Amino acid sequence: MRLLVDRVVGRDVRALARAVSILERGGPPAHALAVELYPHGGGALVVGITGAPGSGKSTLVDALIRAVRSRGARVGVVAVDPSSPFSGGALLGDRVRMGDHAGDDGVFIRSMATRGRLGGLAPATADTLTALDAAGLDVIFVETVGVGQDEVDIMRLAAVTVLVLVPDAGDDVQANKAGVMEIADVFVVNKADRPDADRLVAAVEASLALSPRAAGDWRPPVLKTEATRGEGVGEVWQTVESCVAQAGEGRHAARYRARLEWRLRDAVAHLAVQHVADTTTPEQWDAALQQVDSRGLHPAAAARELLQRAFAHASGAPA
Amino acid sequence: MRLLVDRVVGRDVRALARAVSILERGGPPAHALAVELYPHGGGALVVGITGAPGSGKSTLVDALIRAVRSRGARVGVVAVDPSSPFSGGALLGDRVRMGDHAGDDGVFIRSMATRGRLGGLAPATADTLTALDAAGLDVIFVETVGVGQDEVDIMRLAAVTVLVLVPDAGDDVQANKAGVMEIADVFVVNKADRPDADRLVAAVEASLALSPRAAGDWRPPVLKTEATRGEGVGEVWQTVESCVAQAGEGRHAARYRARLEWRLRDAVAHLAVQHVADTTTPEQWDAALQQVDSRGLHPAAAARELLQRAFAHASGAPA
Repeated sequence: MRLLVDRVVGRDVRALARAVSILERGGPPAHALAVELYPHGGGALVVGITGAPGSGKSTLVDALIRAVRSRGARVGVVAVDPSSPFSGGALLGDRVRMGDHAGDDGVFIRSMATRGRLGGLAPATADTLTALDAAGLDVIFVETVGVGQDEVDIMRLAAVTVLVLVPDAGDDVQANKAGVMEIADVFVVNKADRPDADRLVAAVEASLALSPRAAGDWRPPVLKTEATRGEGVGEVWQTVESCVAQAGEGRHAARYRARLEWRLRDAVAHLAVQHVADTTTPEQWDAALQQVDSRGLHPAAAARELLQRAFAHASGAPA
Repeated sequence: MRLLVDRVVGRDVRALARAVSILERGGPPAHALAVELYPHGGGALVVGITGAPGSGKSTLVDALIRAVRSRGARVGVVAVDPSSPFSGGALLGDRVRMGDHAGDDGVFIRSMATRGRLGGLAPATADTLTALDAAGLDVIFVETVGVGQDEVDIMRLAAVTVLVLVPDAGDDVQANKAGVMEIADVFVVNKADRPDADRLVAAVEASLALSPRAAGDWRPPVLKTEATRGEGVGEVWQTVESCVAQAGEGRHAARYRARLEWRLRDAVAHLAVQHVADTTTPEQWDAALQQVDSRGLHPAAAARELLQRAFAHASGAPA
């Protein structure tokens, strides 16, 4: 483990790939590795790129990789796919995309499979980002579909979040992005050659004008791109950098703290469930399920009994 | 509280509305109420209706309400909206939809606001369903956008889940529904008058053919509807009832148990976080955040310290 961490910190890409695989599998080895990698992170700029399927966000990420690589920075991409909560793995397999960068040692691309485990995808993604960060990547793009609590949680891991919208996707789509719109720092209307692009820009700006925002806070701009042709991509990157330059002020500071708090609370939840699982016998677990099923106990009351028993153990401490 | 529960169980719709508001606000009053309502539930059929914005799922729910009401059953609808994790409330306000049923005492409609709280939206939705169930509603439709872990969790609360798809939404959309496709019991291709409807039906059937399924298991059918005209809606409802009639066998039994287990694990996570919050001083919390931020401690290690301290308290028991 020590050796693997040293190799990751030494920027060995194969070691990094192995580390990420361990982190994705979860369990005690993942936990031990994450704890050892954690002190070596903190230097990377994590940028969330969020958008509905078909919005062209992968194409935008591809163009951004080029823009960032041309400055000599090393780049990571973590693509988060919804997947089966039952099969325990990605139904579509590991996406191999952006093949153009395959021969470039300065680009590390990885897809995450959602696995329906409690605590969701976000903690595994957080640890994967830590590994890429520890491996000295300068910029890490996290690409997510922008709907759902899990996605919002993952967006919280990013210092800056870019929301990619596309004309003609229907008003309903935009309206349902409410949660995501609140969290985005930069709005991109991609496929800006489509007729309704300007209308969408105006609609987003109108929506932003309604959000309360303190004086001096970052004002999310709405940019237009044609990612397939590289149009507007340079401006997106400059805007991301401007947003980072404002970090520490107003909304940024509040978001940063909220992000830390969320990670800590999530870790508490995850560890408590793990400790209950480790200290409860199958018979005790079945008895609790039975009581909830027969409506003799509300799930929260059954959970209280399980927690009390788990933490009354000799050690009294989760492993 | 006792009185409110009695009135809910006595099918008082205004009491039910008040109970749901209390449950949505969360905290100790919500918890106490949920515990008291829980023994009175268990009779309702909970049907999940899931689909992307624009798929016409609300229109389908509307048509299903009519179909179910025509048989004299009492109906509830819980619409789950993505919303702001920052504002603490629904950005779009409470949706008032399906106005046709406004004067019908046998139809109770409610929208849930996502609030970004730990444990997500699913526990609040579970308790809301329990309240509607305790109030003697026979059928409860839960309407969700079908992407994201939170949505998958909410779908787990349903005995039967209907996934609404729409032609021309693009292959990418369908592919990204992998997690949701695994959990759906009935597939509906809505807007079936569109030219690509049959192609979509064939694509879904091909995808289903790839899923492993034991002999005797429910085989999810793919139905076509034009919900705006009521076309095919009766068949959807008959299919839902057939699916329920198979409950207890094979996949159904496994899903039922998985659902119970998920609720219990989720309750453990929720309660542990609450107990840490109740027993940790602001100074202790800030110190933990500081250590995580400076990378002195991995979030999981900081969480372990918080849990140990919380459960070492005199009572040793979460409230």
